[in-house]
Amino acid sequence: MTVSTTEASSSGGESTLDWIDTRSEARAKAGLSRRLRPRTSDSTDLDLASNDYLGLAKDKRVAGAAAAATLKWGSGSTGSRLVTGSTELHAELEFELANFCGSQSALVFSSGYMANLAAVTALTGPGTAIVADQHIHASLIDGTRLSKADVVVADHCDVGKVRHALETRGKRRAIVVTDSVFSVDGDIAPLNELHEACRATGAALVVDDAHGLGVVGPGGRGAVAEAGIVKAPDVITTLTLSKSLGAQGGAVLGPSRVIRHLIDTARPFIFDTGLAPSSVAAALTAIKILREEPDRPERALTVAHDLSNRLKEAGFQVSTPTAAVVSVRAPSPEQAFQWAETCRTSGVVVGCFRPPSVPDQISRLRLTARADLTEADIERAVRVIRESAASAGVESRPR
Amino acid sequence: MTVSTTEASSSGGESTLDWIDTRSEARAKAGLSRRLRPRTSDSTDLDLASNDYLGLAKDKRVAGAAAAATLKWGSGSTGSRLVTGSTELHAELEFELANFCGSQSALVFSSGYMANLAAVTALTGPGTAIVADQHIHASLIDGTRLSKADVVVADHCDVGKVRHALETRGKRRAIVVTDSVFSVDGDIAPLNELHEACRATGAALVVDDAHGLGVVGPGGRGAVAEAGIVKAPDVITTLTLSKSLGAQGGAVLGPSRVIRHLIDTARPFIFDTGLAPSSVAAALTAIKILREEPDRPERALTVAHDLSNRLKEAGFQVSTPTAAVVSVRAPSPEQAFQWAETCRTSGVVVGCFRPPSVPDQISRLRLTARADLTEADIERAVRVIRESAASAGVESRPR
Ligand SMILES: Cc1ncc(COP(=O)(O)O)c(C=O)c1O
Ligand SMILES: Cc1ncc(COP(=O)(O)O)c(C=O)c1O
Repeated sequence: MTVSTTEASSSGGESTLDWIDTRSEARAKAGLSRRLRPRTSDSTDLDLASNDYLGLAKDKRVAGAAAAATLKWGSGSTGSRLVTGSTELHAELEFELANFCGSQSALVFSSGYMANLAAVTALTGPGTAIVADQHIHASLIDGTRLSKADVVVADHCDVGKVRHALETRGKRRAIVVTDSVFSVDGDIAPLNELHEACRATGAALVVDDAHGLGVVGPGGRGAVAEAGIVKAPDVITTLTLSKSLGAQGGAVLGPSRVIRHLIDTARPFIFDTGLAPSSVAAALTAIKILREEPDRPERALTVAHDLSNRLKEAGFQVSTPTAAVVSVRAPSPEQAFQWAETCRTSGVVVGCFRPPSVPDQISRLRLTARADLTEADIERAVRVIRESAASAGVESRPR
Repeated sequence: MTVSTTEASSSGGESTLDWIDTRSEARAKAGLSRRLRPRTSDSTDLDLASNDYLGLAKDKRVAGAAAAATLKWGSGSTGSRLVTGSTELHAELEFELANFCGSQSALVFSSGYMANLAAVTALTGPGTAIVADQHIHASLIDGTRLSKADVVVADHCDVGKVRHALETRGKRRAIVVTDSVFSVDGDIAPLNELHEACRATGAALVVDDAHGLGVVGPGGRGAVAEAGIVKAPDVITTLTLSKSLGAQGGAVLGPSRVIRHLIDTARPFIFDTGLAPSSVAAALTAIKILREEPDRPERALTVAHDLSNRLKEAGFQVSTPTAAVVSVRAPSPEQAFQWAETCRTSGVVVGCFRPPSVPDQISRLRLTARADLTEADIERAVRVIRESAASAGVESRPR
């Protein structure tokens, strides 16, 4: 349809964006409007919603190092990493990340989202097939959308489907893309089997270890290290610095040639301002703490299991955690919302995930275990979640 | 072509990513390999390459506020802006950005890149036409690639072409996408004429004011404010906090309904960790300084004109600055590289932009004027650039 100038101009001015109101009303009716709720700095709420799995975002050593780096290096990196945005601090973090996780090389980005866009787009092209797990993170999906590759979506964690897609692909090159620990439900991908399927068919494996780093693997070295494939020449790992490391930013780990390739070609690296020195220093210090306190990751896992077990005992449908994410099913989006709201009113902040932000259309509370939660915190959390369930009409069948 | 398992497996392991080496060699041969050169914190080099236009990234007040915010709020925002990643500081910055620039509402992102992806994708869909200036920033291009809209690329700054594309579009809805100040050459878009074309045809205008904010417009309020259209109901402005404001992050400014729409639907907002408190505080303080020292932007402009005039007098082909970017043409990519390298060896860091990172295939030195450059700095810069030209075989015709 071609819109004539006259017709179009009658819709100019105020009305050009009127369609936004129509959408907004529809979302409001469906109970899907979102609202920002800024936190205060002195809240006494119990946080079971952040991704600060190790409690490092408020650790005095991390915050102190970040503050000192700002005073020494300035508040911004001032340019693209290729121009003035690389400091010695960035180089140190890249060395440490690779060293800690066991990869050959690492490259730091301004966010995990950008790291994912970069890895997926730079490793693919019109001559590539991408085989993606159905539940990958939005940033990986956007990477596949930005790429010019053929994209096949495989059923969630179905290695057979992945292998079939690889074997029947119409392109010479291929990559398999997956989260390690899936962000919504906290389940873990069959990394070794996926890697085998990749090796058997000449594909590379790209794993987003955002929720694995700091929680899973030896001393929190992540799910890719745990699977023993972090050094493999055909494995690329992406990370975020904003969850277990308590900072901001992202990274790609992999063979040096892949990292060099990203430096030369990845648009989200080249055309973006480098990560602020403050966040670089925070992540560096968090890794140092992980080395010094290798039990922290296990504590986060223990808290997750405690939460999961006690909520199961209370009769809820709860995931068995493989990392620090515990997901509790709700019968409907409305009830999930009501449940989470009641928890919040009672001082316990939990995540509430509903369609369309869940890959499987199942609404749930998403709880995150933190290494610094105490016994008393866990008891309080379970009590409030149980009491709030009743008021939201969520039934439970206690064991 | 279908790759059989046997054939493919023979290319597994080490060789799966061999194509990267082939590309890398080709780039090396073409002189297009890039290298990271981490800065030290005590360098005495003269910086004419960063985008720290107002010299605020190292301002003690900005860095101090950023450091204090880290200690108070923690080193990371700990979650999506919709979950735990919004602090009162984020709300304050959004209020201040809107207030300072004169828009109805504002939303903060973790980078300008993400803000651009969000604005372009959330405002478009299969029923939309995008008319994009040929020279828009990579992040806006990626936004158009991520969108499901029809994309028409119009000749650089050609309002007639934009208008024609709008009038003959096959879609009901349309947006025009442009930089205000173009990042490579520093030239400025005809914002008023573009807005008129939009109004006449029922389209909305999306302007990336990354290089306008802090330099152009009344007191540094940006090119969109300068054009008098920042409050228009059909204008959306995107910003970065990483250039004039000396921090990190990005923002979208616009009518409140647009901002609410982004909160509800923009994937780079919803699925990304909120900006670190440190960067939020830095940007807030930078705006405060802009209010208190309204002459800073003009000083950056004056430095840009000085640089441009003196380099013109020295016989180079130099852009006439509309903001703080001064571009000096080089006869070839090799000479641009050599020229920039020689400047660096002599202690003056300049940007070197070559294909494929320039939209017009012209290689150049890219100099950025900073408000805190002294007379002596400018003299030193011009002298070094002149001397280095000779050694790179770049001819000049002094006036
Ligand atoms: C699995 C996964 N990958 C990537 C990201 C993006 O990381 P960042 O927030 O650092 O952009 C997230 C969440 O934020 C995530 O959950
Ligand atoms: C015009 C323009 N828009 C957007 C960006 C991206 O902003 P950021 O670096 O904050 O991601 C840049 C450069 O970095 C730019 O030059």
